[in-house]
Formats: sequence, structure tokens, C-alpha cells
Amino acid sequence: MSGSTNSTVAAELTVPVEQLPFVNDKHGGVIIEMVVPMDPGVFSASLKAALAKWREQGIRGVWIKLPITLSNLITPAVEEGFWYHHAEETYLMLAYWLPNTTHTLPVNATHRVGVGAFIMNDKREVLVVQEKSGVLRGLGVWKFPTGVVEPGEDINVGAVREVKEETGIDAEFVEVLAFRQSHKSFFEKSDLFFVCLLRPLSYDITKQDSEIEACQWMPVEEFAAQPFVQKHELVKYILEVSLAKVDKEYAGFSPISIKSAFTDKLSLFYLNRRDLDRASGSSKQ
Amino acid sequence: MSGSTNSTVAAELTVPVEQLPFVNDKHGGVIIEMVVPMDPGVFSASLKAALAKWREQGIRGVWIKLPITLSNLITPAVEEGFWYHHAEETYLMLAYWLPNTTHTLPVNATHRVGVGAFIMNDKREVLVVQEKSGVLRGLGVWKFPTGVVEPGEDINVGAVREVKEETGIDAEFVEVLAFRQSHKSFFEKSDLFFVCLLRPLSYDITKQDSEIEACQWMPVEEFAAQPFVQKHELVKYILEVSLAKVDKEYAGFSPISIKSAFTDKLSLFYLNRRDLDRASGSSKQ
Repeated sequence: MSGSTNSTVAAELTVPVEQLPFVNDKHGGVIIEMVVPMDPGVFSASLKAALAKWREQGIRGVWIKLPITLSNLITPAVEEGFWYHHAEETYLMLAYWLPNTTHTLPVNATHRVGVGAFIMNDKREVLVVQEKSGVLRGLGVWKFPTGVVEPGEDINVGAVREVKEETGIDAEFVEVLAFRQSHKSFFEKSDLFFVCLLRPLSYDITKQDSEIEACQWMPVEEFAAQPFVQKHELVKYILEVSLAKVDKEYAGFSPISIKSAFTDKLSLFYLNRRDLDRASGSSKQ
Repeated sequence: MSGSTNSTVAAELTVPVEQLPFVNDKHGGVIIEMVVPMDPGVFSASLKAALAKWREQGIRGVWIKLPITLSNLITPAVEEGFWYHHAEETYLMLAYWLPNTTHTLPVNATHRVGVGAFIMNDKREVLVVQEKSGVLRGLGVWKFPTGVVEPGEDINVGAVREVKEETGIDAEFVEVLAFRQSHKSFFEKSDLFFVCLLRPLSYDITKQDSEIEACQWMPVEEFAAQPFVQKHELVKYILEVSLAKVDKEYAGFSPISIKSAFTDKLSLFYLNRRDLDRASGSSKQ
């Protein structure tokens, strides 16, 4: 028996009701986390009963986390008024708001985070690649190594990792020199792209073959002379900012580790440390 | 008839096959966008036939976009090997990779983006609020206005909007002073929080009642003296950086509008404009 719409009334009368596995959250809501398979009709009847009880108790948000193996329980949840909140490869999270008010549930993730790396050796050569796919494929354009940070990865770690993966070069992170926010970069999602200055720790290139067509240390003047660089405002600014950094005085944001007051969890706070140090120094005099 | 597992063999033999609505994407893949309801058995048979054809043609990624009203087609897609890529309130996106290689499909969005606003009037009073919910509820703590940027919203616009919504104060965006990346801030998602300096354009407070308990212009020394500020490294640094900005010399990142070389689309690039201007100035001499 499937959990189709016209079985709803019958289900209320005849289908057994089981306790759904749930925990309370910190915001006056509950999270149902389904792990074990359940007949869609039983799930539907059990959900109905639980919602009625929680509505009386003044519960606000209700979440249902469904592993992909239990996709047959999605339709019964949707029929009760649940909507999709987000999905990852192996599960779907549905949400529902019980009070008669606009919901205050947190929004889904909206951004992907990319990194681009400016690395120069002491011969004023920059590390550049040609990619095997993407809009620049086959155009002979040399670009900085770029990539997307992985789920849960810090920006500074992602930048070092991408450079290592694409070129084999070991490097250490120095600063975020600038960043760009753009929208609708992938379906409806937005993008934050951080321009990172790295310092090389090795120089021998080992190209990654599946994504990278070519890789080299290239004199920065030669890089700058590419028509592509002149035409592409983002690349032009990245180069300008990077050269200001290595040749003049340009302060980007560097990371310091800070502790959350609530959880003791560490995270990175990026700020203009040069200016802050100067300000602290001058205030102490 | 439902698209249950044991109907698969029968479906191949007897269920009619329909052409699924699809378009080619720019990366050698196809996107199936279902809009009109279809019997799950027919969908299953049609998908099977389409995948067999596309595999022969060397198609790489296959996407299925299913509106929430067609949730009964999820299980047949999962049975063919599709996984969840992402979901928004009204649809689920499934993905599949046809070649016998590791997939190179772009990752799902990983981050939410938050903003916090430092605004000071010319009496050295900062704009602060007490929130009705969250971890600080009922503790009497005064904090800077904060919020989450909406899908597709620029950081500078989000900061101005949040301040207006919470306090009624009109303000203009000046700079990003610093930012923090943290992980597992909401389920498995990460968070980028941008500390923004705003300049007030109005001074009369109109508090938002549903989320904000109280709101005021508070002498900055009084704000700083709260035990909460001393205990909370993030807040302490935000205050330190903000005071460096208003009292000393601290350059954050300010936005400039740049054009994409490929689409003419505008986006904002945030950089240390003071240092870049100085660097350009000195190079022209």
C-alpha cells in the first residue's frame, strides 16, 4: 500500500501509529531523524498524530531528515505540508512550521566558496595553469590556480590544497588580498571567490593530468600581456592587487584563530592585521 | 500503480516510454526538467531508455529537476542510481554520472553568509540591539545588529537592509572590516560572517517587534564594558577593529563593481582600496 492522497482518511482510521524517532532542538522545535524503513501509510498516520500533539504543545519548527534509501517517505511528508529545506548526496531535509506565523527557520546554504592563488617565486615568475575544461578550455589562456573549497574546509587550507593538487607545488598561505561575490553562478546559487596570496615552499611542478592541460612558472610581465588579462576585469584587478602586495604596501586580511564563547570551537577571523597592530602600537605609546 | 521496486522488470516490457523534457548543458551533460506529472512507472521506463541512449552518446552528467509536486518521481530516479544534489523549498535536484570515472559535477552550496553592522554616531554611540531569540535571549546583552544575507543578495545590501529592518535606521555601507569563517554552524553547513562598517543616515530608532527586544544608541565605552564583550573573542575583535577604523588608520575591503568577461554581468569585488590607490599613485610618479 502506498501513501497516496486518497488513502489519508482510511489511514487515520485503520493504519497503526508508531512513535517517530525525534529529538528536541534548541529553538522550540523538533527534529525527526528517520533511519529504519517504515511503511509510507504508517509513516503518514504517525506524522499526522505527532503534528497534532506538537501543535498543542506549542512546538514551532519541525524537521524531517530522510536518508535517500527512504525516499518513499517524501511524498507522505509533503502531503502533510512539509517543504524541502536542503539536500545533500545521501539525505533530504524537510521542514514545517506549526505556529500561525511566518516561519523563522534558518535559510538554506546560499553560497559556494572558491579560491584563487597568486604565487610568485623570487624570479618574479607566477604559477599558472591551463585547464582542460571550463570556458577557457583550448584557448591557450594561462590563469592562476583556482578551485572550490570542500565542505567544512577553511579558505586558507583550500587554497594550499588546490595549488598542491593542480601543480604539485607546496605553499604556505599568507593573506586574502580581495574577494568577489557573484550571483547565479551555479543554478540559483551565489559564489564567494577569495583571492589568496601564497608563498611557495617548493618549485618543481608535478601537473595533475585529469584537469590541468599545462602548468608553468611564467614571468609576470608575460602573464599580464595576455589579451585575456586585459579584457577580464576580475583578472586585471587580481593582478593589480597582487603586485601592489608584493611590490608596494598593500594589506589584505590574514587569519587569526579565535574561540567561540559558547562552544570553545575554534574558527578563523580574517582582518587587516598590519593596520590593527599599528593602531594598537600607537595607542600604547 | 506505484513505481515500486518489483515493477521494474514488468515496466521495461509493458510500460510505454515517453520522451523526457531535457536540454543539453555546457559541460557535455543534460538537464531533465520535469514540470508535468507522469506516472512513476512510465517515468522509470522512460528514464531507463534515455540513460541507455545518452550513455552510448558519451553524455557525462545527467540532472533531474523535480518540483515538490512531483515528489512521487524521486524513488524511480533513485532506483536508477541518481543521488540528491541539492534542494530548495519547491524542488529537488538529482544527479547522475554516466562515464566510468569519478564525477566532476560542481559541489552543492556549502555556506550561509551573515553580516554584522558597526554603526557609530558623532556622539561616539554605537547602534545595539537585544534579540528575542537565540543564545543571548534574556541575558540582557547588547549586541550589534546581525543577520543573514538573502539568496542572491549582495553583502553590502544585506547589511544595510538588516539594520533598517531591526532598528529603523537608514545607513550607508562603507567597508568590510573583517570576516570569519566557521563550520558546522547549521547542520553540516559552514558560515561566512562579514563585519561591516556602516555610516548612519538617520538617528531615530523604530524597533522591529517580532525579533528585537530592545534597541538603542549606546556609548561605546558602555558597550565595551559588558562582561559578554570581554569574554567573547569575536565581539572583542570586532570592537577592536571597528575602533581602529574610526579612531586610527585601518583599511578594510570596499566594493567596486566589475564586469564579467563572459556575460557582461556585474559583480562586486572587495579590496583594500586605500592601499591600492596609494600603490597606483606612487607607481605613477
